[in-house]
Amino acid sequence: VQGSGQGEALIERLVGELARLPGIGQRTASRLAYFLLTRSCAAISPQGATRQAEDLAQALVDASRGIRLCVTCANLAVAEQCRICADPRRDRGLLCVVEGIAELRAFEASGGYRGIYYVLHGVLNPLEGVGPDDLNMTHLCSRLRDVEEVVLALNADVEGDTTALYIAKMLRDHEVRVSRLATGIPMGGELEYMDAGTLARALTERRVLH
Amino acid sequence: VQGSGQGEALIERLVGELARLPGIGQRTASRLAYFLLTRSCAAISPQGATRQAEDLAQALVDASRGIRLCVTCANLAVAEQCRICADPRRDRGLLCVVEGIAELRAFEASGGYRGIYYVLHGVLNPLEGVGPDDLNMTHLCSRLRDVEEVVLALNADVEGDTTALYIAKMLRDHEVRVSRLATGIPMGGELEYMDAGTLARALTERRVLH
Repeated sequence: VQGSGQGEALIERLVGELARLPGIGQRTASRLAYFLLTRSCAAISPQGATRQAEDLAQALVDASRGIRLCVTCANLAVAEQCRICADPRRDRGLLCVVEGIAELRAFEASGGYRGIYYVLHGVLNPLEGVGPDDLNMTHLCSRLRDVEEVVLALNADVEGDTTALYIAKMLRDHEVRVSRLATGIPMGGELEYMDAGTLARALTERRVLH
Repeated sequence: VQGSGQGEALIERLVGELARLPGIGQRTASRLAYFLLTRSCAAISPQGATRQAEDLAQALVDASRGIRLCVTCANLAVAEQCRICADPRRDRGLLCVVEGIAELRAFEASGGYRGIYYVLHGVLNPLEGVGPDDLNMTHLCSRLRDVEEVVLALNADVEGDTTALYIAKMLRDHEVRVSRLATGIPMGGELEYMDAGTLARALTERRVLH
């Protein structure tokens, strides 16, 4: 049948692109593709066809063209500097190193942080071949002019610990205090149900490394 | 800061479009958006920026413009009729009613079916307000010219049962046999671990409704 191979190719390409997203496998990608394509097809429901696939496409293009990385901290930005780095009210003495945008946003949403950030876009993972050069790590030392303290706000897991240790070593010869987030009991957590590791580390709050 | 609100709006719009996809919540949508935007931003890794967001956008646009619904069976198609309806080797006497494209593809992948299909694009769900007019159901009766048997290949759950019952009633006055898929032990399933309901229905294979 004329054009049928072309149709398969269009669907396969869409499924392939969706399956490249983190946490989305081949089966989920197919389901999403069928959903979007049937939505954009001629009406089967009284509401008629929606432009959902094209709306998503336009949002992707607009965002990827309109957004870039802040030259200072590698946060998402529309100008050369992100909203936070360009804000004169932020405390330039306190720099918070985070793994990614999601973590930066979580701190912003908490409302309790008034310093600036530095986004690594990943953590060290020797087992998967992720080294310092694969991350936004090398520029950190040149961002320390007014900084008095660097808070390593990384996950309390092996990769987070490895990365924090590496950066702490890297900053040893700089005139900055280096700290990590307090590890301990989360808000609302009940001591009775905490694991031994959390309990053991819960007495210390912010740990000054050097 | 100039343009920062605009940047937030671009990101929020992308997150919003991603969160409209089935099975993708607000948090996953944010994670996907940050992933795609950091990928498309200026290089932080030696590989440099990728065009992943724009590749996905282009795949969406191409597929949604190139694909439509088959006028006969509502399968995805590039021409007026889908590959299956246009194939003269398919058995027009056997029509398989399926919930969606994923189910149609599963039957095609099984390689064991040589008849044609009819895609409902959903199932009846009175509790969520999904009635017959919200599905591709009304045209079924006009698709029965050469059909000898209609197989209702719907899920073995409440919505599938409801939908099968409704269609079976709708077809009562037509000269077609109406059947459902056999419910029973899945291939490789061990009797010892089957639930009572499956065991109870496992003795019947294809159940002729009328």
